[in-house]
Amino acid sequence: MKPINDPSSIDRRALLSTLALAPMLSAPLFSAPVLAQGAPLPSWNDGATKQAILEFVRATTDRSRPTYVLPEERIAVFDQDGTLWVEHPMYTQVVYCLERVPAVVAQKPELKDVEPFKTVLSGNREAMAKLSMHELEQILAATLTGMSVEEFKAEASKWLETAKHPRWNRPYTELVYQPMLEVLHHLRDNGFKTYIVTGGGQDFVRVYSEKVYGIPPEHVVGSAGGTKYGYGKDGKPFLTKEPKVLLNDNDAGKPEGIHFMIGRRPYVAFGNSTGDREMLEWTGAGTGPRLMLLLLHDDAAREYAYGPAAGLPDSKVGTFTQALYDEAKQNGWMVISMKDDWKEVFPTNTVGGATR
Amino acid sequence: MKPINDPSSIDRRALLSTLALAPMLSAPLFSAPVLAQGAPLPSWNDGATKQAILEFVRATTDRSRPTYVLPEERIAVFDQDGTLWVEHPMYTQVVYCLERVPAVVAQKPELKDVEPFKTVLSGNREAMAKLSMHELEQILAATLTGMSVEEFKAEASKWLETAKHPRWNRPYTELVYQPMLEVLHHLRDNGFKTYIVTGGGQDFVRVYSEKVYGIPPEHVVGSAGGTKYGYGKDGKPFLTKEPKVLLNDNDAGKPEGIHFMIGRRPYVAFGNSTGDREMLEWTGAGTGPRLMLLLLHDDAAREYAYGPAAGLPDSKVGTFTQALYDEAKQNGWMVISMKDDWKEVFPTNTVGGATR
Repeated sequence: MKPINDPSSIDRRALLSTLALAPMLSAPLFSAPVLAQGAPLPSWNDGATKQAILEFVRATTDRSRPTYVLPEERIAVFDQDGTLWVEHPMYTQVVYCLERVPAVVAQKPELKDVEPFKTVLSGNREAMAKLSMHELEQILAATLTGMSVEEFKAEASKWLETAKHPRWNRPYTELVYQPMLEVLHHLRDNGFKTYIVTGGGQDFVRVYSEKVYGIPPEHVVGSAGGTKYGYGKDGKPFLTKEPKVLLNDNDAGKPEGIHFMIGRRPYVAFGNSTGDREMLEWTGAGTGPRLMLLLLHDDAAREYAYGPAAGLPDSKVGTFTQALYDEAKQNGWMVISMKDDWKEVFPTNTVGGATR
Repeated sequence: MKPINDPSSIDRRALLSTLALAPMLSAPLFSAPVLAQGAPLPSWNDGATKQAILEFVRATTDRSRPTYVLPEERIAVFDQDGTLWVEHPMYTQVVYCLERVPAVVAQKPELKDVEPFKTVLSGNREAMAKLSMHELEQILAATLTGMSVEEFKAEASKWLETAKHPRWNRPYTELVYQPMLEVLHHLRDNGFKTYIVTGGGQDFVRVYSEKVYGIPPEHVVGSAGGTKYGYGKDGKPFLTKEPKVLLNDNDAGKPEGIHFMIGRRPYVAFGNSTGDREMLEWTGAGTGPRLMLLLLHDDAAREYAYGPAAGLPDSKVGTFTQALYDEAKQNGWMVISMKDDWKEVFPTNTVGGATR
């Protein structure tokens, strides 16, 4: 089945809240992006944004300055979709769920003629784009729950090895932003712990976060479903993924999830959408130096342009709205222009047949 | 008010499941225990248990051995109450909740003549020991929720500075087990990440975990209530602790909580009660070398004797039952005898007017 390219009828935020259903990992799956040595942030153009990031790190790590932050307090949080990797035309995890439907139906043939599975099996993109939230939730529940955490990890890992983004024909895990990888490294080099705080499924992101971002499973905070402890016929215990949302890690759920999972207020927060608003507010409300940034997708040539950059008064896909842009300006959050601030968008060392 | 010394009528496990309601910290509050330099585990008597711990660490950190474990995979989990510090005659957090009642009633005078608050205010220990689970839950909800996460942290920190255990007349945070502090250090010195996985309240334990155990807030997995994001009159955001259980980190909740919060299966698990059974099972079900231990309280002179050590066929307080003892023997989990394995029980450098 081909990925769906028109997500216009899908409410992203409501959808993400149902992604709360995904296990962990450790085995190397993907090639680690090579990072440039030498001066930090080489893929960033010189300018106010790059300088602000570099200056923040100096200010918080220089013991002689009043803005010094103890190493154990150095927490940096990053949204994932649209902040660390491409989120258009559809969240990668949603593509995964839709493409898993044939395998689920093979296991449960009674679903073959039942909606919404029938529509997904048809491959009719227009019909798929019209699926209701309730129907999408059924698909997510069917594809992300009911298996052991190890089974889920194995399935998602396998899919990620072969699935490719329709525009670039590259694995999704290569469509991460090189400048953001450099920010992650620069922060870690300076004693910051980097966390992903995503509305996407925690277990899904954990499958590749260590290899792709250098962020270990225990530093992934995401929407999460419950698991249920049980015993196999051999008496061996296992955890089954349950269709029960424990944490909806979007909007107010982000600071709530950060408190729950980390227990410290971050000093650095990167996001790109209204779902990150409260996380940036919560970060900024701390005392001392704090750094908040939003990535503006304004580069249709190299990636995408949407939100205020696309001239929309208010984005239908619930992402970077004009209201968020205004709040950023009012609160002193920096807005990263992909077009102006980034020399490179994707890691070049992993480019295969890229069409960019 | 004096702490209650007779918890016999309280169901410990059911009670713990309601402790899911507690914020974080960072400021130094307590004196850090001084650890001996030189050979590891100096407060352990030579014997099979000490040797097993030392050999496990060698086996998992020596690259030339087939049992080698990658540093990022080295996760060790520890129950807290009765495993890292004294849990008798009553969980410290329950003492905290009971002793907070006067302050809560001062804020809400209408509770003065209402049960169960009236009984707690009376100071009548016998009556307090007879409080029902439902009544205790009301007390926990009233004392652990409804305030901001910062307010909770400040209140709990303040209490811990002055509260003392009735038997030793020492701060609770000094009644940690010196041999276990040495295990934590030895594991960390060898690249293991140490986590607390407690049925107690996550936010409560985070108040002192870094200073007392060297375990940072983000490595505390505990029973946890939800928080609610909101804005003050000044527009500043805050998180309020809600009386809604997100994670009941007991029994099966421990492996479920470990998966949720850490996303990796531990290699080492220490516990002391039936609430830790599933955590040890889950740890032991992994491939490769795994180390599971249960602490047996068999030292009435220096600490307490309860569970099988006290000759009970099945402990009424739901702790180390005979059935758990049998499962440990069957699964090859080691049982630590406090009496035989430990030279010292508590850190000696912080002893004040100890009566032991």
